[in-house]
Amino acid sequence: MNELRVIPIHGVGVVARGDDLVRLLLEAIEVQGLELKDHDLVIVTSKVVSKSEGQVVPFDGSEEHKAALIDGEARRVLRRRGPLRITESRHGFVSANAGIDLSNTTEGTAVLLPKDPDRSARRIRAEIARRRSLDVAVVITDTFGRVWRNGVTDVAIGSAGIRPILDLRGTTDANGRLLEATEIAIVDEIAGAANLVLGKAMGTPFAILRGLDLSYFGEGSIGENVIRSANDDLFR
Amino acid sequence: MNELRVIPIHGVGVVARGDDLVRLLLEAIEVQGLELKDHDLVIVTSKVVSKSEGQVVPFDGSEEHKAALIDGEARRVLRRRGPLRITESRHGFVSANAGIDLSNTTEGTAVLLPKDPDRSARRIRAEIARRRSLDVAVVITDTFGRVWRNGVTDVAIGSAGIRPILDLRGTTDANGRLLEATEIAIVDEIAGAANLVLGKAMGTPFAILRGLDLSYFGEGSIGENVIRSANDDLFR
Repeated sequence: MNELRVIPIHGVGVVARGDDLVRLLLEAIEVQGLELKDHDLVIVTSKVVSKSEGQVVPFDGSEEHKAALIDGEARRVLRRRGPLRITESRHGFVSANAGIDLSNTTEGTAVLLPKDPDRSARRIRAEIARRRSLDVAVVITDTFGRVWRNGVTDVAIGSAGIRPILDLRGTTDANGRLLEATEIAIVDEIAGAANLVLGKAMGTPFAILRGLDLSYFGEGSIGENVIRSANDDLFR
Repeated sequence: MNELRVIPIHGVGVVARGDDLVRLLLEAIEVQGLELKDHDLVIVTSKVVSKSEGQVVPFDGSEEHKAALIDGEARRVLRRRGPLRITESRHGFVSANAGIDLSNTTEGTAVLLPKDPDRSARRIRAEIARRRSLDVAVVITDTFGRVWRNGVTDVAIGSAGIRPILDLRGTTDANGRLLEATEIAIVDEIAGAANLVLGKAMGTPFAILRGLDLSYFGEGSIGENVIRSANDDLFR
């Protein structure tokens, strides 16, 4: 396989309800002297998707209000420790506090996850195709903690134009034996790769991945392919 | 931040006990027309580390033998379903089957995880410094499943010269509020990024990441910084 490039797109200002994300993205790419190409993958961090879609609610800063907001977004609380709740969101994402973001938001507000991040990704992809006649994939990312290991990583919460899971089942190794770990969640590796150029840089909501293997592009969504049903999960 | 490049290093043959991984790496880089540079990060997949260190054991292919091998490597079994066991390895890694690899190995053998992957990473880093007077970081990766989400991703099981967790605690956002998700497990995002150029390509055990933020380089190890103690884990 070839070299992969992960390119942060700078210079996007504060995003507000109704803002045209695709216009902001395309303008920022141009200002940076770049050009979007077929089979690029565009990363969009969830917060700007939420803000542009109006998923911002008043928040008075109290623990009680925080708990009420979480209750509204979570369909199940899996664990509690102090103020922390590990929840299953309406979408099926298991994360802290139903994915509600209380930092880097306008004072007095909290940002909820997009209502349907896969649909948001499809819409962004379609808009790019409409305006530039380009076939790019789109991944919407958010920052989740995980079990067993310290720290948070970025994962994909919505996608379009990319196969979220690379399925190598049936593939044999160099000795003709079936491979074991054969369903690679490339979409989450993509989200993490983007965060390496975005994580420290506040206010940089977009990145481009260029050079992904062409076989990675295709159908699928996070809701259908990545979220594991509670029944299949050994730890729920 | 700047662009990140993820470069697979091709042309490394089968690795056997006693092989000099650093020589194989440096030769393959040269053959590819590249040159290693200060503040590159070198990815080494765990299997070649294990093989070069002789972590290969006979395996007769039976479920009983597999279970016995897992028992030898695991200090705790967290869940069982059919032949699958989710274990805590001697190192503290929670994964399927104590990280034992039964695919892409020589017929009649299984590959165990390296005994001390952080030490292996430190050794590779020191050897590169000795032979090329270069300051590079090293991350040893393996493929683990995860809870809540389908598919496997590559994670770091050993590291040297890189801060495994980027600690932004105390950092304020654009509005002066403390950031929430502030300990980013960059080392696992690095492992995943590398797998995007390695995952499909059998027999490509090395990659270079070039362009990582300089603040990422520093002290730490997977054992000390990334493995979460069972006491701190809400799901053990």
